[in-house]
Amino acid sequence: MNPNEHETKPVVAPAASWPYFSYPDGMGMRWNYYDYSYPPYAQQAGYFPGAAPWSAAFANDPRAKQPPLTFVLVHGAWADTSFWDGAATELRKMGHLVYAPEYPGHGSDPNKAVTHAMISKSVADFITSHNLQNIILVAHSFGGTVVQKVAELVPARIKRLVFWDAFVLPDGQSLADQFPSAMRKGFEQLRAASKDDTIMLPFPAFRDTFVNLAPLDLAQRLYSRISPEPAKPLFEKLDLKQFYSLDLPKSYVYFTDDTAVPQAEGYGWHPHMSSRLGAYRLITGHGDHFSTAKTNPAMLAQKIYEAARD
Amino acid sequence: MNPNEHETKPVVAPAASWPYFSYPDGMGMRWNYYDYSYPPYAQQAGYFPGAAPWSAAFANDPRAKQPPLTFVLVHGAWADTSFWDGAATELRKMGHLVYAPEYPGHGSDPNKAVTHAMISKSVADFITSHNLQNIILVAHSFGGTVVQKVAELVPARIKRLVFWDAFVLPDGQSLADQFPSAMRKGFEQLRAASKDDTIMLPFPAFRDTFVNLAPLDLAQRLYSRISPEPAKPLFEKLDLKQFYSLDLPKSYVYFTDDTAVPQAEGYGWHPHMSSRLGAYRLITGHGDHFSTAKTNPAMLAQKIYEAARD
Amino acid sequence: MNPNEHETKPVVAPAASWPYFSYPDGMGMRWNYYDYSYPPYAQQAGYFPGAAPWSAAFANDPRAKQPPLTFVLVHGAWADTSFWDGAATELRKMGHLVYAPEYPGHGSDPNKAVTHAMISKSVADFITSHNLQNIILVAHSFGGTVVQKVAELVPARIKRLVFWDAFVLPDGQSLADQFPSAMRKGFEQLRAASKDDTIMLPFPAFRDTFVNLAPLDLAQRLYSRISPEPAKPLFEKLDLKQFYSLDLPKSYVYFTDDTAVPQAEGYGWHPHMSSRLGAYRLITGHGDHFSTAKTNPAMLAQKIYEAARD
Repeated sequence: MNPNEHETKPVVAPAASWPYFSYPDGMGMRWNYYDYSYPPYAQQAGYFPGAAPWSAAFANDPRAKQPPLTFVLVHGAWADTSFWDGAATELRKMGHLVYAPEYPGHGSDPNKAVTHAMISKSVADFITSHNLQNIILVAHSFGGTVVQKVAELVPARIKRLVFWDAFVLPDGQSLADQFPSAMRKGFEQLRAASKDDTIMLPFPAFRDTFVNLAPLDLAQRLYSRISPEPAKPLFEKLDLKQFYSLDLPKSYVYFTDDTAVPQAEGYGWHPHMSSRLGAYRLITGHGDHFSTAKTNPAMLAQKIYEAARD
Repeated sequence: MNPNEHETKPVVAPAASWPYFSYPDGMGMRWNYYDYSYPPYAQQAGYFPGAAPWSAAFANDPRAKQPPLTFVLVHGAWADTSFWDGAATELRKMGHLVYAPEYPGHGSDPNKAVTHAMISKSVADFITSHNLQNIILVAHSFGGTVVQKVAELVPARIKRLVFWDAFVLPDGQSLADQFPSAMRKGFEQLRAASKDDTIMLPFPAFRDTFVNLAPLDLAQRLYSRISPEPAKPLFEKLDLKQFYSLDLPKSYVYFTDDTAVPQAEGYGWHPHMSSRLGAYRLITGHGDHFSTAKTNPAMLAQKIYEAARD
Repeated sequence: MNPNEHETKPVVAPAASWPYFSYPDGMGMRWNYYDYSYPPYAQQAGYFPGAAPWSAAFANDPRAKQPPLTFVLVHGAWADTSFWDGAATELRKMGHLVYAPEYPGHGSDPNKAVTHAMISKSVADFITSHNLQNIILVAHSFGGTVVQKVAELVPARIKRLVFWDAFVLPDGQSLADQFPSAMRKGFEQLRAASKDDTIMLPFPAFRDTFVNLAPLDLAQRLYSRISPEPAKPLFEKLDLKQFYSLDLPKSYVYFTDDTAVPQAEGYGWHPHMSSRLGAYRLITGHGDHFSTAKTNPAMLAQKIYEAARD
């Protein structure tokens, strides 16, 4: 395991920051006996409770407090654990414990010759070595395939799985199998062209399908941060029989402008891959695959929280 | 028919509350001769005109007045007529007549041994006995199957059908037929386990697929309100040949986070069931199946109105 | 070509109005070293930067300036170039050059006996005669079929194609082929009923599927502006082999409430027709086919810009 500073200081926010609203005592059980109306802006995609003026009214109500959640955030390909910085900060402000472990072949690890099993084992080892319990295991993108295997390794430590525009593989398939053949061949060519069995996304593809909502300067900055991705784990066909026998609560967070996987009939994050989860909680928002985590981490954190809460 | 207090006091709001904007006299016919620009917030999901500052400018313009509509709201399964309280209040504030009849097997009716025909006949009888004309017949969820039959019974009294995340059955099918087989079998098991041929939703299913956007305390409150649903009407295969020969205007209101019916290829509210309506008006919003009616009734009322208006 | 006043006065806005934000010098390369957070309203559908208070902070930063784009806007059927007035004004306010050429059979042209080739040639001739280079060629609706052919005629002058709820035809098909057979037959009947081989949309169809989000008075005003559409270009099967051999950047802007083409399995703007573009940039928003251009031109212009920028 690669220890890193992103996992070491979970901070519990003071109770006053909890975004819950509550209701007066003595109210009856009929829906119409009390008013659960949010102000209209609370329904908007960009909403986050911390900044909403009405939340102050509930801040000191002891019933508004709920126990914090323990999040473990698993990033995707062409990323490292700093991908989560903004969302992790926001989740910590909300009072939650947040861990974002790095995994082999990423971050400061110079070794790109990694397997999918090495990656999933490292995340499971992180969870076990920190003795984390009752965790919300959150996956983005390629991270979905990782948490599918982590869930097999440490199922008893997991409270809920949250997939955010993350791959949900059927038993026996690979990540690359989720793309139309022309795109899969493109990945294969990029892989063949590399010297160390990695794949580097060309900038035009990254710009149009990973950061489509970003201004150019942000797109360029984000691209300058990505490293060639170890190719092997993207092409490994995974045995997921055990995953599909687990009875864990699951959620899917879907951002409507995310086309990192093509939105096309028979492809895509949602409902194509999300449906493989069977019963799950759906939370949607407006965002893309890679830049919204930077441009609106508070919204992302709110969506992840809505997917995670009891 | 079960008379109830939700249907007895339609109130016509004063004209000043009408949310229409208008345009000055003497404007030409070219688009660019006048400015129909809404302020940007008016395009947002949570928008409702009553609270928008710019609407005041038009409040006293006599041309902004339009005749009120007559709504008949038909709730779905695991609900009673109080489900509509918030939206009905908002529609009445807008000046409309609103009726929300209870139907057999629901609300205070202790008899759960009801048939689909009993339910649809009771709604049609309510419309006839009140001599309602030119109605906007609004259905939610299971209510969709009811209004399909009500439309056959009293077509001349209906101005438009509005389905809000409501079932639209093809001729010869049942509500249960609209689910993947694993879920249909789950319903069958729940039905078999009951003593009075009802189905009670387990809380985890309710929480994740009916009230996925709600905080836990609201989810629990709403769950505490639901009663076991008579099972027979959910499994009856309906003859809908007459429905599909009617030439009534139709609208579909779709909330993007509603997964009470799975969003999956070959399933779901929209476009799967909505497409069966043929030509229809689509209105989308951000909400779930059961909690948005409580958390944002003004937005729901606005969407229903947009679906209903001439 | 029909010259018109909509194309003659491109205005470059002062640099201070550019909606870019930037970042301080000397920042490191890690994502977490700088904060790209937008305020939450910046994520909303109705957002446009010109009105956002935070943009002022960046207005005088020279790095926020980017070269203006050159837009050529191609309208759809039952429209003329005035369709673009609002969006063109907004794009010009942002500093861009905007051209909205009229094409044969539309606007003031009394001759309805036009072919698809006459239309696409006229747009290509407009581009060539004005010696436009590096253009963003934007299509709405039927205009999509036009820019597919224009792209074949003047590929070297095009920087990017932007389809906004616009047809993307496969090689050898017609616009009419994109509709379910019942609707296609409806078009054929309307065509057969005309004296001059045109098609006039009936108001109920226009109201429910073109301007579904509009109040009735706006719907009526917009309907009063439309003219019968020359039928032949809607039924011509186009040879598009060259289009599909071009390697031009492409974007698709999708408005979620647009049902001018049915949202149904195997039909629709997105992902059905958008997917034919192969790799493209997706931008979504909340709007309908015809009225949002009038009610929220600033939002439309922002979405087109997001689709167009480098």
